[in-house]
Amino acid sequence: MNYAKRIDKLQAILRRQKVDALLVSQPENRRYLSGYTGGDHGIGETSGLLLIPARGRVHLLTDFRYRLQAEQDVPWATVLLYPKGLLKLLPQLLPDLGISSLAFESHYTLHATAARLGELLGKAGIATVPLKGVVEKMRLIKDDDEIACIRRSVALNEEVFQEIFPAIRPGQTEIETALAIEAAMRLKGAEGPSFPSIIASAERSALPHAVPSAMQIAKDRPLTVDMGLILDGYCSDMTRTFVPGKADAKFLELHRLVRRAQLAGMRAIRAGVRASKVDRAARAVIADAGYGQAFGHALGHGVGLAVHEDPRLSALNNKQLRAGMVVTVEPGVYLPGWGGIRLENMVVVREDGCENLNTDSTWLDV
Amino acid sequence: MNYAKRIDKLQAILRRQKVDALLVSQPENRRYLSGYTGGDHGIGETSGLLLIPARGRVHLLTDFRYRLQAEQDVPWATVLLYPKGLLKLLPQLLPDLGISSLAFESHYTLHATAARLGELLGKAGIATVPLKGVVEKMRLIKDDDEIACIRRSVALNEEVFQEIFPAIRPGQTEIETALAIEAAMRLKGAEGPSFPSIIASAERSALPHAVPSAMQIAKDRPLTVDMGLILDGYCSDMTRTFVPGKADAKFLELHRLVRRAQLAGMRAIRAGVRASKVDRAARAVIADAGYGQAFGHALGHGVGLAVHEDPRLSALNNKQLRAGMVVTVEPGVYLPGWGGIRLENMVVVREDGCENLNTDSTWLDV
Repeated sequence: MNYAKRIDKLQAILRRQKVDALLVSQPENRRYLSGYTGGDHGIGETSGLLLIPARGRVHLLTDFRYRLQAEQDVPWATVLLYPKGLLKLLPQLLPDLGISSLAFESHYTLHATAARLGELLGKAGIATVPLKGVVEKMRLIKDDDEIACIRRSVALNEEVFQEIFPAIRPGQTEIETALAIEAAMRLKGAEGPSFPSIIASAERSALPHAVPSAMQIAKDRPLTVDMGLILDGYCSDMTRTFVPGKADAKFLELHRLVRRAQLAGMRAIRAGVRASKVDRAARAVIADAGYGQAFGHALGHGVGLAVHEDPRLSALNNKQLRAGMVVTVEPGVYLPGWGGIRLENMVVVREDGCENLNTDSTWLDV
Repeated sequence: MNYAKRIDKLQAILRRQKVDALLVSQPENRRYLSGYTGGDHGIGETSGLLLIPARGRVHLLTDFRYRLQAEQDVPWATVLLYPKGLLKLLPQLLPDLGISSLAFESHYTLHATAARLGELLGKAGIATVPLKGVVEKMRLIKDDDEIACIRRSVALNEEVFQEIFPAIRPGQTEIETALAIEAAMRLKGAEGPSFPSIIASAERSALPHAVPSAMQIAKDRPLTVDMGLILDGYCSDMTRTFVPGKADAKFLELHRLVRRAQLAGMRAIRAGVRASKVDRAARAVIADAGYGQAFGHALGHGVGLAVHEDPRLSALNNKQLRAGMVVTVEPGVYLPGWGGIRLENMVVVREDGCENLNTDSTWLDV
């Protein structure tokens, strides 16, 4: 990854915003800008923050537990430890670096932390400036290195699915299936799942966000498997719905409908088209068949270092797609009491269309 | 759980603080006050918030995905949905409820959210008041229902350990061992691990927070297993260090030392004693043997709905322990290049001593 280029770009933004530095606390932003792989345990327990000055050398601030990892991952930055916490270090460090205005990520800083920071730095004559979404905006367009990573993540996710798929049998529980999938991910080298796998059988497949239960997978009923993993920091996300046993006519009809909607969505994608228009293209197929009310969520979302990121493919997002964005296309039909069908692939937005990253065709065209 | 009693107590606090209501966003606080089991995906994707007025009925604010679960878990509250987000709902709802000052949890609210909330409610003539740690303070002392839950969580965690222990063999990788443990937890009914299991063999056991690797477990070398689970919302946390194969004299000597330090810490615990004094009691045993530098972390931490909560048993915490607190006692000795030994039990602070919640004695007194 070309971290130097990303840092240069961000530093130019900071100079335009007339702040002396940005403190990066958001974990995916931190990884995007530096490659640091430290993992946080929630917002309260960080493995470190980047201090990016508008000019000059980047600092990675962390504690003794992460020192080795920080120095290995980001040899081109200055690693500094805060044995008594970040709020003790900054009032000493910033004046030494000539920083008199510090921006922070207001969408990933706790109110109490920001208040205390403002107070402590204020005493030292340093202004604090809330900024929102600056690095996220940079992350919208994936460069070739990132697309290569996402491609590998998608491929490994499919490999896991294809390994587990033949072993999925009625009688096995949803939880057992989820555990088998997540174990295979980690044994094949993934950092872990990119979200808790969804394994939803029969009428439970009508819940778009079902948590795997102790229920046994039902014979001849729909089974939704929605799974993704993280490989080298980058996420994948794929959904297949199929029938262990014999599919009935209704399933086949609805499955074809959802697949047609997905293909219509994919055909609508190209640089310059509004996200809402892509959502509409897929939704129209389902609505025309009389199932509009049964498709209650947006068509897709961006994927990268985070499994859910911008852009959203939704009726509410009128922004234009741009080449290099990576999004899911995942229409669904959910019928309470009967079950649901969702199909999800990931694609790269290109100037003249989209590139489908998924090659798995299990139960796709039936 | 007696939620009514907890709500009464919190409402009395709010009246003393002269605020009309508290918005509870912190997930464990939300569960403590209501029993709501909805799970968040990080601070950016909440499954709902409690609105606790200083007088009157509690509201649970959530979105359509969690409606059913909210109504099932908290039938005594009014469940309200925010189809267009919390920030749209509150300016309409609060005037109807006669709320003109709203406290929020400043330690679990993003700066950007707090700023926007202040702006929107300000226009409606409603003041926003940052509060910190109010519910956490209530959670410090566990009542009998909570201690019963923690006891079951500890017992199930030991059951998982004892099931997996005989199968731990040299040659198996750290990751495989972690996966076996976490699968057993979920199959036995746990909600999941309370933290990512630590399985660290040989010199890797010198890292207190080692992430399981693809390294094979080494014969005749120390192996640290630090694991915990969540059952009915309550966490457990236990560490054992043992040798697959034959332990040498150095291991046995250091293992006895760490165990002696643990027992000294447990003997020092009773209501009224300062946390720092308990830490010192255990640390002195290790320091007297010449290994003071090799024990670089605090002796223990509180456990409850969160796996790491107050009180900390550390040199820096001079507060007195109180009956009903639940803490870990986990001294360790870490020697880079050789390995480490840590032993961890959980205890309840009682008036006249402490009650050890662990019964597992694997490799404890060797």
